[in-house]
This record gives sequence, structure tokens and C-alpha cells, in this order.
Amino acid sequence: MAFNFFNLRKLSTKAALFKNVQLTKDRFSYLKRGSYGTVDFTDVEYFKNLLGVNNFITGEEVKSYNEDWLKSISGFSKYVLKPKTTEQVSKILKYCYKRNIAVCVQGGNTGLVGGSVPVFDEVILSTSAMNSIISFNKLSGVLVCQAGCVLENLMNYVQSEGFVMPFDLGAKGTCQIGGNLATNAGGLRLIKYGSLQGSVLGLQAVLADGQILDCLNTLKKDNTGYHLKHLFIGSEGTLGVITKIAIQCPNTPKFVNVSFIGLESFDKVLSFFSLVRKEFSASLSSFELMDSVAIKSVQKNIGIKCPINGDLKFYVLVELSADNNYISHSIQNCLEKALDEEIILDATVADQPSLIQNLWKIRENIPESLLRYGYVYKYDITLPHELFYDIVPEIRKRLEKLDVKAVCGYGHLGDGNLHLNVATLEHNVEIASAIEPYVYEWTSKCKGSVSAEHGIGFLKSKYLKYSKTNLEIDLMKKLKNTIDPKNILNPYKIFPQDDN
Amino acid sequence: MAFNFFNLRKLSTKAALFKNVQLTKDRFSYLKRGSYGTVDFTDVEYFKNLLGVNNFITGEEVKSYNEDWLKSISGFSKYVLKPKTTEQVSKILKYCYKRNIAVCVQGGNTGLVGGSVPVFDEVILSTSAMNSIISFNKLSGVLVCQAGCVLENLMNYVQSEGFVMPFDLGAKGTCQIGGNLATNAGGLRLIKYGSLQGSVLGLQAVLADGQILDCLNTLKKDNTGYHLKHLFIGSEGTLGVITKIAIQCPNTPKFVNVSFIGLESFDKVLSFFSLVRKEFSASLSSFELMDSVAIKSVQKNIGIKCPINGDLKFYVLVELSADNNYISHSIQNCLEKALDEEIILDATVADQPSLIQNLWKIRENIPESLLRYGYVYKYDITLPHELFYDIVPEIRKRLEKLDVKAVCGYGHLGDGNLHLNVATLEHNVEIASAIEPYVYEWTSKCKGSVSAEHGIGFLKSKYLKYSKTNLEIDLMKKLKNTIDPKNILNPYKIFPQDDN
Repeated sequence: MAFNFFNLRKLSTKAALFKNVQLTKDRFSYLKRGSYGTVDFTDVEYFKNLLGVNNFITGEEVKSYNEDWLKSISGFSKYVLKPKTTEQVSKILKYCYKRNIAVCVQGGNTGLVGGSVPVFDEVILSTSAMNSIISFNKLSGVLVCQAGCVLENLMNYVQSEGFVMPFDLGAKGTCQIGGNLATNAGGLRLIKYGSLQGSVLGLQAVLADGQILDCLNTLKKDNTGYHLKHLFIGSEGTLGVITKIAIQCPNTPKFVNVSFIGLESFDKVLSFFSLVRKEFSASLSSFELMDSVAIKSVQKNIGIKCPINGDLKFYVLVELSADNNYISHSIQNCLEKALDEEIILDATVADQPSLIQNLWKIRENIPESLLRYGYVYKYDITLPHELFYDIVPEIRKRLEKLDVKAVCGYGHLGDGNLHLNVATLEHNVEIASAIEPYVYEWTSKCKGSVSAEHGIGFLKSKYLKYSKTNLEIDLMKKLKNTIDPKNILNPYKIFPQDDN
Repeated sequence: MAFNFFNLRKLSTKAALFKNVQLTKDRFSYLKRGSYGTVDFTDVEYFKNLLGVNNFITGEEVKSYNEDWLKSISGFSKYVLKPKTTEQVSKILKYCYKRNIAVCVQGGNTGLVGGSVPVFDEVILSTSAMNSIISFNKLSGVLVCQAGCVLENLMNYVQSEGFVMPFDLGAKGTCQIGGNLATNAGGLRLIKYGSLQGSVLGLQAVLADGQILDCLNTLKKDNTGYHLKHLFIGSEGTLGVITKIAIQCPNTPKFVNVSFIGLESFDKVLSFFSLVRKEFSASLSSFELMDSVAIKSVQKNIGIKCPINGDLKFYVLVELSADNNYISHSIQNCLEKALDEEIILDATVADQPSLIQNLWKIRENIPESLLRYGYVYKYDITLPHELFYDIVPEIRKRLEKLDVKAVCGYGHLGDGNLHLNVATLEHNVEIASAIEPYVYEWTSKCKGSVSAEHGIGFLKSKYLKYSKTNLEIDLMKKLKNTIDPKNILNPYKIFPQDDN
């Protein structure tokens, strides 16, 4: 497989654990706990009876559920509930709603914005035990499953039937599909298969008061009334607990090839992108950008050699997938033409799995290589193509007198999604304040998005205003209040807390 | 172009005008006008001053805005407002909200469920004068335009830049993109480009109270808070007036070919579908089914000859589009294999535009050919593939003792969308009641959708319950009440009126 970010995320976590020490609960001392009920002995008995002792977690084991993936924040919950069925979720929420107990919904807990861990003592409702595949239709490619299924397990399952999941993530070995929907996960296949908003056909969700909303449509077309499923996709568990999912899986592509290309300027990158989009509109499945700093970091810190001239300013990885292997021939022609016209300076093409894997490794290892410097400030933003790279030299300039190891830009150029990374020896307040909120203001001025794929969660709620108008935020609050009037589901998330 | 349903819809309208006589305002005598304000002299002056006399329509000219495309229902509005800008829409709604004047939002008025015409005297807000293309980004393929742009004009515009619109409809010569979004239009390219929910990147909408909600995102990825645009896509003008749209356009496919195939049973159709999906997962752009009754109707009533053996039970049209012409070779191989294995019985392939057009004409002329019998009962439903055709013989059986000219099934098998048509000499109450609500009950039992792509509008509101649960309808009503508390936008639509 060309896509294998799985181990990478695990490595990054260890590095972050070691270095990412600045984030403690003290940072959030301005926050006040909502006036929710506290779980008492009677409540514990109710939950235990409902779920059985094995699916009611308390004591030391709760710790890992309280901490986010990067161990950057931690809540103080004492209880984890692991329902196995929608009916159990319904009973839990009905009970909590009546008792006014706040609930933190948690899938694989792989999010990067603190959306899946409690902030205070919210009861954690983990979907981990809801991990059954309900059905797979080989004709339509529609998979129906419970929310707690791990993405990689679903990938393996549908692969054995000749299909692929329509999205792929670095955290696939741990993340759960319910959480993927709740955060509207993007990832590596978006340019080909589109967003989850297009792929998800239906879902079942339990509302705050325990009512089961069944929108588990398995049809491609259904225009009967409001499309309620979209309320839940990307609402980060604040409007309901997603319990079941129906998703459209595409057939496995028959042929894949990957090219690795060097270019001398970002203008040429855009020219080349335009050319590739035109020539391979039906086959393009990835168009990833890496700048020279990123490539040098991988060469120096990981020891992976650049397969072409390693001294160029920009590199691009192009993946094509198609029904026939004629694409190998077509991409050769396209690259020769681009070389002749001096759009690109160097290139190599692979169509064998092991060679493809090697080319992907360079792109995959960028985050890890940067972490080897010590600490990394990470920004996941969407920008218009024309302005995509401008922020990188801009930030370099702002930081030139500070002790910075690397400022680099890479990411899903095809989707306009830039990963701006600043590597330093360790976390430093002066460097942080030279970047933030500047990078968000800049993104906002370009009409970009301050969170391309990670969501808002807890950590980015104060930056929501940079990508959303007051009226949008007001309407979001109205919806929240209509659907969860007691605000028991994932409180303190998405909406800025300081103005509440 | 292979897709050209435009003239067809015009022909059908004339035929419907002639025969479709049963639908009068008397049918809706149970309805009560809401307690809205009535437009008075002061209001008229306000609207005239705001819009200018040319964009404030009254008198005889209003008639065509009161009647739906099929002339099946008609409202009694006296005034049509044609704002040119979002700001004018905002002022109109702010005024109407204050005065409690009901508003019917109208795009191209090509809907088939009476959603775009007034029911009583609602003021008609037509988006026709909001027809500017705002921008097109050749790099990203993102088109931004006003809501009143006619789909075909947008198609021509982006085509000249090497792109296509991600959807296509029979009514493209008249329908407007704002209406397409409001009704979540499906159409002929869905199997390839997905639904509008995936293609639409952003929109601007004016809320009932006149506030302008700007979600006009032009980025592929933006995970900052709830995805509000989805509230408006498919809500049929009941939650806000869509004024601007940002939509992702794919590049024009470089090569297209079309095959026309004959088969002996529906089981073989499904086997063939499975084969084609597997072989051409990246190239498949249409998979259309036609039964023998449909083909015979086209042959007999329109005089188009079937290009292969015309006496088979089922026919399929397969369109492929790809980056290279190797697909012509691949489909030949695939068809030969399917012939050898007796999955299919006969086939022809075309890759020249005029020949492609000829094959499409057979599929395109089915609706018109059926109308030549006199009257047609039309059902647009989605069904699971396994049950896709079962309803057709079932309905034939129910109607065998009645005076019916043809019962046939055709449509977008690739998307599970069946057009079930019953042709008779004229409208007949006995025949109608033998089909309805039976067909909806049947669809509901199969977990199908009673409206695959046409929406609910006014005419189908009483059937909403067949595809939506009580809780879904309740939540829809709550959303409506939250966003348009005075219910001034498109009243009497979507929600069943008898229980209000």
C-alpha cells in the first residue's frame, strides 16, 4: 500500500511526550466548570447495572481516557462508560440528561485539538465497544457498521471484498469511524474521493435526551426533507452521539503509480499542478508538496536519500490511480513535456508497490524528521492555491532573529491544505507569540481556514472567529441550544469559553 | 455532448399541458392560509422603490410565476420581486419578516413537486435577476456565482475554460443553480461526481429575518465548526434564500465512450453492473437501465430504432470517461468476456460524439415516448439494487385488469434511482388509487426513498412520512422553527399541512 502513515503517528506521539511539556492544566485556569450534576453512588450503580462491570471503567485505568493523544491536555473524569449498543447509549444519555450530567464522547482519542477528552469531570462515553460491522453490500459498495470500528479494520475488511474506504488517515490504526465522522476527517484521499460529506450515506445518532435519530440511509439518492446527517458530520460530538454509519466505498483502483518531481519555484509548482489536473483529471489521487527545508530535514534527521537532485527548491509527489496501466505511459509523456518546457527540473516514476512505498516514505517522514529537532509548532490551514506558500517565507522572516531550527511548508496542495511547521529546540513563549495569532490573522485575511482537517475541539475554540463570522457562530449556538438545550454533550468544545 | 435532455423537458411540458387536467386548486381545499400579513399599498411602494419598476412584477405577467412547470398547480400571488443583489434580498426579507408577509422563493421554476410556486398569495421572490458569474479559478476549478445563473450558461462558461459542472439535468436550459442547491438536484453525473453535498464548497444565504449568512467558502477543506451550508442544500427554500454559490468543477474528461447492451434478466443486469463497477471503477460515468417496455415505447412512439436486438428483456447504457482512450479497448474486452460468459446477449460501443449522442437518444426519449400514450403516472424512487426492479412487475400485476398502456421501469441503476412510469390514455382515479400510496408503502418497506431527486415540495409532503421517522420530522420542524420562527419562507412546503 502506498498509504501508510500509521507508524508515523505513533513515533510522533513519543517525541511529543518527551518534549511537549508546556501544556498543563494551569493554562486553562480561566475556565469554569459548568453547573452540571456530579456522579454519585446511585448513578454508578445505574451505569454498572446497565453496562456490566467490564464496560464500566473507573480507577487508574481512566487516566488514558482523560489524556489526549499528544498528552498535551488532561481532564479529570472518574468514569468511562463503554456501551455496546445504540440502546445502551440511549439509556446512558437519557439518564445523564435527566440528572444533568455532562458527557464527553470519545472515539479512538486520536484528535489533535483536545476535542475527545474531558475538560473537567465529564463522564466519558467511549464508543470502543461498539465495533461490529453490520453489513457490506458487494454490489453497491455500501458498508454499514457501528461507530467504534477502527478505520484500519474497516479498510482490511472492505479490501478483502475488492473495495477501499473513501478516506485514509495517519491515525487509521487507532481512530474510529464514528470519530472520523464527528470530526469530518479529511486525509490523503480527499482529492480523489471527496469529503465524508459526500461519502457518508447515512448515520444513526443518539440525541442529548437519549432519543435515537435513525438517518441510517444506505441509498445514494434521497431527497426527502432536510439532510439531517450533515448536522452530525463535523459537529465534534456536540449535537449527538453517532452510533452507526453507512458509507459508500469505491472499488479498489486497479493500477497505481507515483512520481517524485523537483521544481525551481512555487509558480512552477502551480503550473505543473494545472498541467497534471488537466491531463489526469480522472486519475489524480494525490498531489503533495514538500519544500527544500522539509526534504533536507528528512535527509538529515531520518537519513532517507532524495531519489532525485536534492538541492531543488520544491518537490511534488503525484499519485495516479486508474483502471488500466496506460497511465504509466501517459505520465512519462507528461513529465518529458514538462521537462522540455522547463516547468519541472527533475523527476522519477514508480509503478511497483515497493518503489511507490519508498517515494511515499519521504513525504511521510517529514513530521517525524522535524520533531527530531526538539519541538514543533504545527499549523494545519487551508489557503487559496495562489497564496498557498506565501505564509512560509513570511513566517521565516518574522522568526529570523529567534532560535529556530527549521520553518517549512508541505502538505496536500491538491486540496489547498498546507502544513506549516516551525521546528525549535524546545517550546519558547517568544517564538509562540511571534507566530500566533499572526498565522491565524494572515489565514483569515486570505479567506483561508484556520483548521483544514483537525477541527476546533477544545484547543482551537478561541481561533474559531478567524474562520467564522459572528452570525455563523450565533447560528451554530442556536442549533446547539435547539438540539442539546442542557449543553450536556461535549461541553467546552468548539465554542469559545471566555465569552460564555 | 452526450448529455442533452434539454429539449425533452420542453416537449414533455406541452404534452402534460394537454393531458394533465386533473390537478386543480380544488384538490387542496383542505388547506388553510396561514395568518400572514397581506401586501398593501405601502408595501408595494417599498418594494418598487427598492427594486425599480422593472424588477417589481404585477398584473398578468405574474401568472407564469404562479404556475409550476407542469401547470399542475397554481398559486394566487399578485407580486413578483426580482432582486439583483444579496443586499436587496436582505432588505426584502427584513421587511417581510417585520410585516409577517409570506415569501415563496423561486429559481427557474422547473421543479416537479410544486415547491417553487406559491400556494396562496405569498410574495414571489424570484432569483432570476441575480445571474452574474462572480469568479472562476482556473487552477482550483472553483466557480463562484449568483443563485440565479442558469445551469446551462454555467456549463458553457466553465466548458470554455476546460471544466464541466459536476452535475447535469434535463431542465438545464432553464433551471437555476440556486434552485439546484435548494433542491439538492441529482441528475446524470452523480455516479461519477457525487452529490452536490460533496461539490458545493460554500454558499451565501439570507435568513428569514434578512440577516446575511456568509458561508461562501471556496476551499476544499474547512473544519471550523458546524457545516452550516448543508442546512440549506436540499431544504427547498424553507430555511433561507441562497444568494451565492461556490462550487468545485472537475476538468472536462478527455475521452468518453458509450455502450448499449442487451440482457435477458434483471439478475444478469446486476451481474453486469458488478463487473463494470469492478473493471471501470475510475471511469464509470453512467449506468442506465431500460426495460423492454421502455425500449418498445421509444421504438413505436418516437420511431428510434434499437441499435441491437430489440426483443430482449433489459437494456443498459454504460458511459465511461477517462484520461486516455485505452477505455475503448478495455470495454471491448469486457463486453466480449461478458458475451462469452452469457452475462449479456448483445452489445454495441460508440466513441464518436454523434454515435454517442444516438445511443443516448434512446434513453433520453423514454419519458416523451410514454407521454404519447396520453397520460403518465411518474414515480422517482431510490431502491436497494437487489430490489430495484421488483416493483415494476408488482405494479403490472396490480394494474392488469385496468386500462393501462404501459408499465415500465428505467433510470439511474448506478445510483439505485428508478423511474417507475405508468402510461394510460388519460388520468383515472381508479388507476391512481391502485398505485398510490401502495408504491410509497412498498418503497418504505424496502427502506427506499420516496423522492430520489425531485424533493418533497408541496405535492409530496403527505408522503414524507414514508421515508422519514417521526423523530426526523420533529427535528426538521425544530430546525425550521429555530431559523425561521415566523415561518415566512416557503410555507406549506415539505411539512405535511393536514397535521398543522
